[in-house]
Amino acid sequence: MTRRTALRNTRDKSFSDWYHEVIEAAEMGEHSGVRGCMIIRPWGYAIWERIQRHLDDKIRETGHENCYFPIFIPMELIEKEADHVSGFAKEMAIVTHHRLEESGSNDLRPTAPLKTPLIIRPTSEAMITEAFQRWVKSYRDLPLKLNQWANVVRWELRPRLFLRTSEFLWQEGHTVHETSQEANEEVETMLECYRQLLEEFMSIPVITGIKSEGERFPGAVSTHTIEAMMQDGRALQAGTSHNLGINFAQASGIRYLGRDEKLSIPHTTSWGVSTRLIGALIMVHADDDGLRLPPRLSPYQIVILPIDNNEKARVKVHKRCREIADQTKSLNFEGERLRVKIDTKDDTPSNKRWKWIKKGIPIIIEIGPRDLESGQLAVHRRDFEERKAIFKKSENFLEEVPALLKEIQQTMFTKARDWRDKMTATDITNLATLRSYFENNSGFVRGKWYQDLASEEVLKKFGVTVRCYPYEQTGSRGNCIVSGRSTEVDAVFAKSY
Amino acid sequence: MTRRTALRNTRDKSFSDWYHEVIEAAEMGEHSGVRGCMIIRPWGYAIWERIQRHLDDKIRETGHENCYFPIFIPMELIEKEADHVSGFAKEMAIVTHHRLEESGSNDLRPTAPLKTPLIIRPTSEAMITEAFQRWVKSYRDLPLKLNQWANVVRWELRPRLFLRTSEFLWQEGHTVHETSQEANEEVETMLECYRQLLEEFMSIPVITGIKSEGERFPGAVSTHTIEAMMQDGRALQAGTSHNLGINFAQASGIRYLGRDEKLSIPHTTSWGVSTRLIGALIMVHADDDGLRLPPRLSPYQIVILPIDNNEKARVKVHKRCREIADQTKSLNFEGERLRVKIDTKDDTPSNKRWKWIKKGIPIIIEIGPRDLESGQLAVHRRDFEERKAIFKKSENFLEEVPALLKEIQQTMFTKARDWRDKMTATDITNLATLRSYFENNSGFVRGKWYQDLASEEVLKKFGVTVRCYPYEQTGSRGNCIVSGRSTEVDAVFAKSY
Repeated sequence: MTRRTALRNTRDKSFSDWYHEVIEAAEMGEHSGVRGCMIIRPWGYAIWERIQRHLDDKIRETGHENCYFPIFIPMELIEKEADHVSGFAKEMAIVTHHRLEESGSNDLRPTAPLKTPLIIRPTSEAMITEAFQRWVKSYRDLPLKLNQWANVVRWELRPRLFLRTSEFLWQEGHTVHETSQEANEEVETMLECYRQLLEEFMSIPVITGIKSEGERFPGAVSTHTIEAMMQDGRALQAGTSHNLGINFAQASGIRYLGRDEKLSIPHTTSWGVSTRLIGALIMVHADDDGLRLPPRLSPYQIVILPIDNNEKARVKVHKRCREIADQTKSLNFEGERLRVKIDTKDDTPSNKRWKWIKKGIPIIIEIGPRDLESGQLAVHRRDFEERKAIFKKSENFLEEVPALLKEIQQTMFTKARDWRDKMTATDITNLATLRSYFENNSGFVRGKWYQDLASEEVLKKFGVTVRCYPYEQTGSRGNCIVSGRSTEVDAVFAKSY
Repeated sequence: MTRRTALRNTRDKSFSDWYHEVIEAAEMGEHSGVRGCMIIRPWGYAIWERIQRHLDDKIRETGHENCYFPIFIPMELIEKEADHVSGFAKEMAIVTHHRLEESGSNDLRPTAPLKTPLIIRPTSEAMITEAFQRWVKSYRDLPLKLNQWANVVRWELRPRLFLRTSEFLWQEGHTVHETSQEANEEVETMLECYRQLLEEFMSIPVITGIKSEGERFPGAVSTHTIEAMMQDGRALQAGTSHNLGINFAQASGIRYLGRDEKLSIPHTTSWGVSTRLIGALIMVHADDDGLRLPPRLSPYQIVILPIDNNEKARVKVHKRCREIADQTKSLNFEGERLRVKIDTKDDTPSNKRWKWIKKGIPIIIEIGPRDLESGQLAVHRRDFEERKAIFKKSENFLEEVPALLKEIQQTMFTKARDWRDKMTATDITNLATLRSYFENNSGFVRGKWYQDLASEEVLKKFGVTVRCYPYEQTGSRGNCIVSGRSTEVDAVFAKSY
């Protein structure tokens, strides 16, 4: 293809510059004056709200309740769980004062130092576990299944919008169970919610699996993960679900009176996804014309543009736009009414069309004076490579819309999955080949792996990690790519974000 | 009444102790280990989510978009708006370091000091205005109407759950307009949204009006407010909407190219409500048996309790509970499906009934083996003073439910309004009487007021403030209660939270 693209930066030339231009062109977000902190603009936030609403419904359906814990964690609490905390210590924002006062030269400076500094939560594990210790007394209090939507802060020295920011938005689930089996079911249930969110709602194919020892959440018994491939062949960990066993409960002294009338230590879990998902969305679906949104996720599935340069036809065109909008809004897709917008802004039709292309709207409809006479609509499909209208009789089009949206949703998924499969090597059997593969390519390698921490360190030296042991295992025996030892375990290797 | 109440503390004995016991008994929230910061427990958070969802719909319907700005404000930005900021400076949490490290004795201590400290937002005015300055270029960009749901921090030395906490949740709307008139309309539209939220959704009667000079938002041209009366006769400012004129835009250098092709300064507004509304809800509606929730707001409108101590009848009773639940869930009330829960927890029916009474559920239904035979339901109405069941034929009851909920919603509003009116004095004409009134009573005083800052100071000395000049003015002429000067203005005076 040689046609001009809407973005100056293309994926081929610089994936990173292209990524940032997609965000800018779609007005999704931008860096703020505070290093590492982003402003999520309305279009980015509308996407986050769609994700949030969809996932929140799943979280409720699976029996969880939302709540809210303070943003500040007292130092003492942090010191209690030193092991867990060591992973975050280098990136913690710390509040030391609670007042501003004018100094001599009219400048403001912090005064009123706190007796003990407060940490801004990098995760609420410590706060919530402390509350569990007070709330859980008996098996009657179990299972206790909570979730929180919140902002968290992890000081980030190399920020990247949506992917790595000092402040980000997320949900964190925290649960307490009587038995190990229940905790395991919980961890798998939530990972399955995440898989559905990504695959069925965001059209992002993922590999579900279990993290290696080196990649596990500090203090967890096991970490389950969904891993997606970006268009540059790198992996992105899109969500994790941790079985914490009795480790956290034991450390914080959670005890409950069991059905056997004895005091027992319960099993806990935690799980989360964040605004990072928007980074994944961009890197999986966007193209050199900007963002592309799967219909179920998109804040609007259809944008209608009146071609109203002709003053005389203006009123009629607008009336027709409203009719089409009303008719499409009354249609259903995946259990929801269609979301439709007429863009009546004072701008040229071409500017407006490109604006919505860059914002990723699945279907753009243009209606002008000529279309009124012919009864036709000019329909632009965002999933098509070519930026060209298809003309449709309006009654036919209205009938077809739900099926069309379904097709777009599915096509986006299939395209991403095919790309991933194409970019996945399965014929690598030793370290030398693996190494030269990652020197010359990016992508996933599926191969045998003898689960040991030492050879994870070997891989890390050339920037590769074990992404997970997929749930789907072949069961065949072979030799570990790194150590050559005999093993039945399949793993996925990749460079990652 | 001499019957035993569910709470140890009653409103008569200690309003403040009673208030905290309502929260504890309903499991709505609690103090955390960090002074002034609260944990919002699932029941409190579910109420907040109901408020949020309802108001968010209104905010969208009136043409606003949600977005998200960083929690940190750089010191430079704070210094720019010194006037506005001076009101918050005494209560700002300040981040000075971004790393924790082990010191010699194994203790953790803050390291990596920031070059310039960061303020945790007490409001996002400064951040958002700075962004407006970059985003607003032409009249085509206007009106710009944004809203954000976020946590903010104002260091609180005398915290009180939901009412005054160092961290609280709120929404803050920020808009930019071409004309003063548009800005005024915006401010009034949003105050009307708040009025509807409180009166129609939360059954809390409010007075809408304009703040006096002394109570106005720092830097605003006018502050519009909704004022509610608590059961102890004090006022609570439940929401405000500010017309900022061109003051903020001018200070931050926002300029736009107008329709006349000249650079102009736009008009801005801001408006917000917070988790404080939950404090108002409790102080207006709760009684000595705990919380009372209006049906539209309540997370569940009906809770069904199986009376299942009898092992033999257990299966049948549960089946009947599910039938009744399914039938009620399919009913509509105010455009939403009914929210119904069966409480199958392993506890005595009496414990469970009191639990839901304390949580404020409008209707509790009990179904036991005897009721199966008679086809009757034992129905408890939370808005009744007596804790006694009414027996209803199930088919009759199901038919009546929507009307019953409507009645409860209305009764709660009327009761609160009647109380307010009873507690409002309108016959006070001079300072001596006003003073002795507030020495011996609490409540509102409606009277004449000559709008001057000096006599606001006089009132403050005995703990009274001008709550607002109500939109509804009599227009009659009289003498100012404080200064005796002739005036047409009516005002409301009260002690407040």
